[in-house]
Amino acid sequence: MAPIKNGRLLYKEIPDGYPQPGKHVVYDESELIDLDNVPLNGGLLLKILVLSIDPYLRNRMRDPSVRGFLPAFEIGKPLQNGGVAQVLRSEDPKYTAGTYVAGSYPFQKYLVAQASEVNGLRPVQKKGKLTLSAHVGVAGMPGATAYTGWKEYAKPKAGEVVFVTTGAGCVGAIVIQLAKADGLKVIGSAGSDAKVEYMKSMGADVVFNYKKTKVEDVLKKEGPIDIFWDNVGGEALDAALANCNKHARFIECGMMSVYNGDNAYQMKNLNYIYQFEIQLHGFIILSLIPKYPEFYTEFANRIASGEIKYNEDITVGLENGGAALETIQRGNNTGKSVIAVADY
Amino acid sequence: MAPIKNGRLLYKEIPDGYPQPGKHVVYDESELIDLDNVPLNGGLLLKILVLSIDPYLRNRMRDPSVRGFLPAFEIGKPLQNGGVAQVLRSEDPKYTAGTYVAGSYPFQKYLVAQASEVNGLRPVQKKGKLTLSAHVGVAGMPGATAYTGWKEYAKPKAGEVVFVTTGAGCVGAIVIQLAKADGLKVIGSAGSDAKVEYMKSMGADVVFNYKKTKVEDVLKKEGPIDIFWDNVGGEALDAALANCNKHARFIECGMMSVYNGDNAYQMKNLNYIYQFEIQLHGFIILSLIPKYPEFYTEFANRIASGEIKYNEDITVGLENGGAALETIQRGNNTGKSVIAVADY
Repeated sequence: MAPIKNGRLLYKEIPDGYPQPGKHVVYDESELIDLDNVPLNGGLLLKILVLSIDPYLRNRMRDPSVRGFLPAFEIGKPLQNGGVAQVLRSEDPKYTAGTYVAGSYPFQKYLVAQASEVNGLRPVQKKGKLTLSAHVGVAGMPGATAYTGWKEYAKPKAGEVVFVTTGAGCVGAIVIQLAKADGLKVIGSAGSDAKVEYMKSMGADVVFNYKKTKVEDVLKKEGPIDIFWDNVGGEALDAALANCNKHARFIECGMMSVYNGDNAYQMKNLNYIYQFEIQLHGFIILSLIPKYPEFYTEFANRIASGEIKYNEDITVGLENGGAALETIQRGNNTGKSVIAVADY
Repeated sequence: MAPIKNGRLLYKEIPDGYPQPGKHVVYDESELIDLDNVPLNGGLLLKILVLSIDPYLRNRMRDPSVRGFLPAFEIGKPLQNGGVAQVLRSEDPKYTAGTYVAGSYPFQKYLVAQASEVNGLRPVQKKGKLTLSAHVGVAGMPGATAYTGWKEYAKPKAGEVVFVTTGAGCVGAIVIQLAKADGLKVIGSAGSDAKVEYMKSMGADVVFNYKKTKVEDVLKKEGPIDIFWDNVGGEALDAALANCNKHARFIECGMMSVYNGDNAYQMKNLNYIYQFEIQLHGFIILSLIPKYPEFYTEFANRIASGEIKYNEDITVGLENGGAALETIQRGNNTGKSVIAVADY
């Protein structure tokens, strides 16, 4: 077969605010690949089927001189994130052609790599309600973030109150389900009425649209809270600080409200950290996942059986990945955002 | 003996900014007491010798509608804080006349009370370098704050770096000594050159006057830090967030920078909480002290022997207590601030 275009989504420019497709990330078809003859040197030829779009990607689109928990993306190279691929050809005895493998992939259609070069490479399967794309969502990095963060830091007692931000996001919706299973009263916030309905369908007891109702007002009425799952920082964090019980646990998973330059919120309540003896736990999934191997077995089975529910916001075509990236930064996705790079 | 004046330092008005003597707190001699004949009803007549002035008192001088870890002071009543008294008369078989007792006392010269009405009442003694007034400082609430907070949350490893704010204060100076004993590199900040010298004499490796040198610059050069002892919040906290190692421990003991209304600092680095997996531990001494009974025995002996050093800033006369209160809020004291209410 003749060489074909190996489409890639390239990182072109550091955004000031929200990342714009065509400016900060650009789809490029200049690279060709000969699927039959490209040398593998003992490695794999992978066809990438699904790529994940997550809020944290904005952090990697920063000035490289600013410290961060992962390296800044390099200008001119493809974006990179979790995905699922199929092995097309293999010179590695551990992987046979046809196998599905999850891992961290560059945003391109085909990839030649040694297995050892792919972070987190692991075979995955479809099973019941566990689809291939779920391996980058509810059964992948965001799912593990929710599961391990909750197990490690929530210390829930039945009857306590938890407040979950971005409760209609992939992480938040799992946290809602875990908290309900532990017997808690769950307050969830999101940014649209459709998302509010979705949180309700996940089992949340009190749900609201933070664009219409002030967090402070809800927590004053429905709190005080014992656990805060923070995906946003800023005003929600400030309201949680002022409306929690003594010895509250704050699980600091992300700060969406400051990713895109709209960092104007003036915190007023940080002094409650010592007054209410609050424990704030910052964490990154890479540190916790080795402690919770059951996530890939027992928890995956709960997804396959339909006990743990999820939904997806699928963008078809890698060329539309830049738009999906902007959408998630603006919070306009509904469900776990993924790019269907090819049919799967 | 005829009744004598029972001088009291009364809380008169909620301050907007710094508390001013004569306005927000007023010395009053309208109350009389007959030391020989006042009825005790099975209780004690105490002569108050020493009262403690601590930064946190400002928190109790707030609008009572604002939540706080301790109740707001009541207008028209004396201030209240830790002190040491001598039993003048007793109808309680557990306490004989002449005994020294530490406890939480109203700011007045004499007090009639049941033993059960005095929070934290306990007999104390002079011993070596452990003076009576030290029982409200290095051997009392601030000392216990430093000791238990360090034991509970610091998790120090030799060679790590700790940054201690208000390092010349009672709490900070003890933290410096504990950290040095654990083999750490200690960075200390304070607000005058005299305090900087004092931190050096306590053993700190790197000391600076934050009014002359930016915290950020020092931590960039001498960090990254592993432990942050936070007594101030605001800019120092923000600089610590940006200049710490992964899994840093932040011990949130107080936020002096926001107590007196000068709360203008705009935090920029809270998003490092999750990125660097920082653990922030808010705490109040009342929760921790039951876990560390050795503070009142073993640690007191280290003070008595001179191994743990301290200094005091003694204001003579309860009538000058209002000025001492303002001085400590402005950070102009040198050493643990106490009021010598009577000779001791």
